[in-house]
Amino acid sequence: MPYVNIKITREGGPDGLGPSAEEKACLIAGVTDLLQDVLGKKPATTFVVIDEVDLENWGIGGLPVEEYRKAIS
Amino acid sequence: MPYVNIKITREGGPDGLGPSAEEKACLIAGVTDLLQDVLGKKPATTFVVIDEVDLENWGIGGLPVEEYRKAIS
Amino acid sequence: MPYVNIKITREGGPDGLGPSAEEKACLIAGVTDLLQDVLGKKPATTFVVIDEVDLENWGIGGLPVEEYRKAIS
Amino acid sequence: MPYVNIKITREGGPDGLGPSAEEKACLIAGVTDLLQDVLGKKPATTFVVIDEVDLENWGIGGLPVEEYRKAIS
Amino acid sequence: MPYVNIKITREGGPDGLGPSAEEKACLIAGVTDLLQDVLGKKPATTFVVIDEVDLENWGIGGLPVEEYRKAIS
Amino acid sequence: MPYVNIKITREGGPDGLGPSAEEKACLIAGVTDLLQDVLGKKPATTFVVIDEVDLENWGIGGLPVEEYRKAIS
Repeated sequence: MPYVNIKITREGGPDGLGPSAEEKACLIAGVTDLLQDVLGKKPATTFVVIDEVDLENWGIGGLPVEEYRKAIS
Repeated sequence: MPYVNIKITREGGPDGLGPSAEEKACLIAGVTDLLQDVLGKKPATTFVVIDEVDLENWGIGGLPVEEYRKAIS
Repeated sequence: MPYVNIKITREGGPDGLGPSAEEKACLIAGVTDLLQDVLGKKPATTFVVIDEVDLENWGIGGLPVEEYRKAIS
Repeated sequence: MPYVNIKITREGGPDGLGPSAEEKACLIAGVTDLLQDVLGKKPATTFVVIDEVDLENWGIGGLPVEEYRKAIS
Repeated sequence: MPYVNIKITREGGPDGLGPSAEEKACLIAGVTDLLQDVLGKKPATTFVVIDEVDLENWGIGGLPVEEYRKAIS
Repeated sequence: MPYVNIKITREGGPDGLGPSAEEKACLIAGVTDLLQDVLGKKPATTFVVIDEVDLENWGIGGLPVEEYRKAIS
């Protein structure tokens, strides 16, 4: 009965505001399959929760992610 | 000094957009009481954080939750 | 299909090393009942995960919890 | 390669709706520096994710935070 | 720069005490590939953290997982 | 009333098995000060929880962290 939490930045997707429902469904299906294939975990008791995080709320390299990308580009 | 995180789908409640403030207050009170009753934890240092998750961001059975409900019904 | 994570300090219980299996079963039952009573969530898809945290890994008031308790006593 | 998650209530800041982008950038910089200073962790692989939580979704003392503040004031 | 947290029960694997290092490496590779395939996320900034949870600390159906399995079998 | 969770790999420190209690106390003090300085958050209601994660349970670049370090060195 795994629980998987995927945190990603809210960007990209059809309107630039985050992944589409189809993309998120692919993540859910893919992670659930992986846990079944590798560890034999049952899909019926596998939870996947996706959190989309605003760019200004995600830091890397000591900077908000957009500034970080500018800094390293 | 417990920390409790409750993740639920954003649905139901008075307008179908998630639990009401009253329902969330009941969850906060109930969990805090439980930790005091079972383990003697002080309410003043018990935190409860409720996350409401969009239906398309919650997966079970390898499917987003709404598709899962249709599939098993 | 709620997911609840309860974080508590690893202390107390029968041998001072954390809550007993019975106490943890009470937390699991109590939280699951609460979510069913308040929001009508089904127990079969309610997950509860308890994390026990070493005292030196939990801070409050800017201090590890044992030092904090000495400081305020 | 640390991962830091900071959860705060969504309040204060320039418009009362939460911390400003500048304040969040200060948190990101400060936590990243701290991990480098204390443990030698590289900023390039330090992630910081800030979650802003609605006041009615945060409980302390068995009450939603606004009611708690009234109760203790 | 995704962050993925996988929580599983500590069981199974070569000695019954949880998945092997090889199995965990498969989870890490699989999730990282999935995020690259579906959303174009770079592996170099994809973190995967696996938490193994003692059976008595995981509840489902209002029961610790071992009791739950007995109850439904 | 912030809640901060710091996840780091279990390595380094006095015996190679993770940061010392003193180092963890520095993290707790530093994060608490930062939240007070930047956002005016009270230390008495600031929780910091440190999770130390085994190297084989932390992935980056699609590999467990030790293999990743070998691969990029």
